[in-house]
Amino acid sequence: MSKIKPTLPKGVRDFGHKELFKRNYIVNIIREIYEKYGFLPLETPTMENLSVLTGKYGEEGDQLLFKILNSGDAFKNVKEKNIDKIINEVAFSAFDVCEKGLRYDLTVPFARYVVMNQNDLCFPYKRYQIQPVWRADKPQKGRYREFYQCDADVIGSQSLLSEAEIICIISEVMHNLQLENYSIKINNRKILEALVQSVNETRHFVDITVAIDKLDKIGINGVIQELKNKNVSENAITKLTEVLSLSFNNINDAISYFESYFINSNELGVKGVEELKEVFSFSNELGNNLDKIDFDITLARGLNYYTGCIFEVKVHNVSIGSISGGGRYDNLTEGFGLANMTGVGFSFGLDRLYDVLLELDLFPENIQKSTLVLIIPFDQNDYTFGLNLLSKLRQNNIKSELYPDIVKIKKSMNYANLKNIPYVVLIGSNERISNTFTLKDMQSGEQFSLSIENLIHKLTNEHSHN
Amino acid sequence: MSKIKPTLPKGVRDFGHKELFKRNYIVNIIREIYEKYGFLPLETPTMENLSVLTGKYGEEGDQLLFKILNSGDAFKNVKEKNIDKIINEVAFSAFDVCEKGLRYDLTVPFARYVVMNQNDLCFPYKRYQIQPVWRADKPQKGRYREFYQCDADVIGSQSLLSEAEIICIISEVMHNLQLENYSIKINNRKILEALVQSVNETRHFVDITVAIDKLDKIGINGVIQELKNKNVSENAITKLTEVLSLSFNNINDAISYFESYFINSNELGVKGVEELKEVFSFSNELGNNLDKIDFDITLARGLNYYTGCIFEVKVHNVSIGSISGGGRYDNLTEGFGLANMTGVGFSFGLDRLYDVLLELDLFPENIQKSTLVLIIPFDQNDYTFGLNLLSKLRQNNIKSELYPDIVKIKKSMNYANLKNIPYVVLIGSNERISNTFTLKDMQSGEQFSLSIENLIHKLTNEHSHN
Repeated sequence: MSKIKPTLPKGVRDFGHKELFKRNYIVNIIREIYEKYGFLPLETPTMENLSVLTGKYGEEGDQLLFKILNSGDAFKNVKEKNIDKIINEVAFSAFDVCEKGLRYDLTVPFARYVVMNQNDLCFPYKRYQIQPVWRADKPQKGRYREFYQCDADVIGSQSLLSEAEIICIISEVMHNLQLENYSIKINNRKILEALVQSVNETRHFVDITVAIDKLDKIGINGVIQELKNKNVSENAITKLTEVLSLSFNNINDAISYFESYFINSNELGVKGVEELKEVFSFSNELGNNLDKIDFDITLARGLNYYTGCIFEVKVHNVSIGSISGGGRYDNLTEGFGLANMTGVGFSFGLDRLYDVLLELDLFPENIQKSTLVLIIPFDQNDYTFGLNLLSKLRQNNIKSELYPDIVKIKKSMNYANLKNIPYVVLIGSNERISNTFTLKDMQSGEQFSLSIENLIHKLTNEHSHN
Repeated sequence: MSKIKPTLPKGVRDFGHKELFKRNYIVNIIREIYEKYGFLPLETPTMENLSVLTGKYGEEGDQLLFKILNSGDAFKNVKEKNIDKIINEVAFSAFDVCEKGLRYDLTVPFARYVVMNQNDLCFPYKRYQIQPVWRADKPQKGRYREFYQCDADVIGSQSLLSEAEIICIISEVMHNLQLENYSIKINNRKILEALVQSVNETRHFVDITVAIDKLDKIGINGVIQELKNKNVSENAITKLTEVLSLSFNNINDAISYFESYFINSNELGVKGVEELKEVFSFSNELGNNLDKIDFDITLARGLNYYTGCIFEVKVHNVSIGSISGGGRYDNLTEGFGLANMTGVGFSFGLDRLYDVLLELDLFPENIQKSTLVLIIPFDQNDYTFGLNLLSKLRQNNIKSELYPDIVKIKKSMNYANLKNIPYVVLIGSNERISNTFTLKDMQSGEQFSLSIENLIHKLTNEHSHN
């Protein structure tokens, strides 16, 4: 072993116990609510065949895939191929030496899974998946190369109840995380498509949605410039920006406006508005008063597989962008040979939620599940006595440790402090002789002299740390 | 999107909800016991720098590392380099185009983490880590390219209490998994080293332990042949095989034998025996009666970083090999520049445990946390009534779903059956008018006519499915 100063690759992180207890707090809330709504867990492998991953995330996405070098002699074929045409140049690509890549999101593996297991699944199939994904993006504040997504999707039902349930799930998760100052932005890709049809630019639909999606970042003038660059007509740009700049007092006004806009002129637009109305109606029936809903005609979502309602969740007064997003798709599994499988899904970004809760100081205290009691023997003579106590505490399911080395009391007390252990039991000759234990409350400094039964009783009732 | 038949890379797996509920059952038992013993969670990233990973797992290990192609134009340097010497041959290796690799085990990342965070950690540092690892091994039954390890390590204490606690943890985990027919094999590398010293073959210590480690697979004659091939002297081989072939009635006999074997002749051997005695004594004090302990002088462990006690757990009467192993190491962090950091750790193989429980049919029933009740509206008129009920059930934290589409009753009942949902509520005009609900127990076929309060009360008490 040569000595090297160890480092981590750019954009990835270790999670120590302090971060993990906080992250698990979020994950547990999300998982519990997903399960309450009838979603079942799924986990897919870290590696997928590149044939499954490529072409699903646009050109930029293909660039950002982490590729895994083939095992064995990955370069065998490349070398042979190139020695033949050695006169010209050494020409080969990643695909000649890589067959596998790291999962880029949870949606494409989910689609692959549905197709591969279509005969065994129970449709409508409601699955949730909480796993890391990897992107070879430039790391920067809040953007990592390894990060966690928390997806939930319903596939195989056209009912807009699924969209309404997504609104309810988002509301419940935000409420349980004590996040109350946020908006659920909602739009419908059918309305956007109808808008683009109404200005006769259907062939530029993707360009237009991609540009609108950047509105937050580049502003309306940036969007106009990008549309010009893509050769969208001046007339269309004017009409589109007019609509995109509209603001409404409430959802009903917005719905009414677009209802009138499309009625008698564009069926797709009417359908999009109808869908939104039904989603809002279902949400109401499910007890959601829609006060966080923001019908936002400028919401476009970057991914082109969406075909119906789309969502995005924005927390106000924090520096982080959206913490959740999703929508309805009709053809996700078609690329894998299974047509007519409609679905709707969304995802929470775990790292984003973590950063938001940290920024707003919303992590509850006492989420760290630490050891409840540390036993400290004064010297070697007390060690066995301490081990017997340790054994009894653990038999009673009390999280406990015995400081393993005989050290100065200051050092073992410091261990209790650093590990946030709320109680210590000091064991010396008095304790051994009287068969009682001195329990010290590390926060208040109080000491209690207790029989073993009373000690177990007291510690068992310390629910706050279990 | 071109249509392709989706496939999975060799040796990796999807985990659907049935597998996940079983896997989580195991993980939860292990995690709970690790935490009861004062271990704190850690998670390290999937990718590590190759400089951290290589040279840690022997030559074979380096071959089995999954390497990640550098992002951007990975071949830029290779191409330039090779065009210069184009006359000769195209010569380059994986290391020219890969800087990162996938985690191969949890021990090396743990050592890296300890070194990088040595000033912030509280020693003795007890950490557990439950994450997947990757090896480009040939996939076969029970051997995967992506599999999960459940590690626990104590670093920074010389106390043999840690070894004794590992024995207790293993016993508790096995007990809670209802696995009672197993052995914890234990040995000490100091005894093995002393044995090798006593036959004057110290320079072949690694060769000898590597050979002994294969005893189960290749038999004593295979070991002898391998030792001959490595030029271990005939005399040494004879003496070693003599000792390796000994069998003892109980631990005490074995201890006494090796105590006499080394006393007055080899201090290291005496130390090794003393260590085992102390571990057994501590285990006893901790309430472990040692009835599963098997002091096995042929246990060697393949990895060369072990320097003290070593363990392996073997379940009897199953086709699977060992399900857990570990040991004491003195120099794990030295390669990263931190010397004199002794530690001891072990790992459960999650996939192995899963296969064992499956083979022995030991997974409890009712570990699937499914939806408790499915609401089925007969037609569109009942839908809103159903949504209101759904909302109330979820407000009471009852896991519930409403079948989202209006379909034939057979189809929605089939959904309940496939998803193992124990109750359905059928909603038709009678229910709407009388404001009572018909709850059907899917297993017994019993039906109950209930007010909403009684329905909630009954379902809330169905703890078995929560």
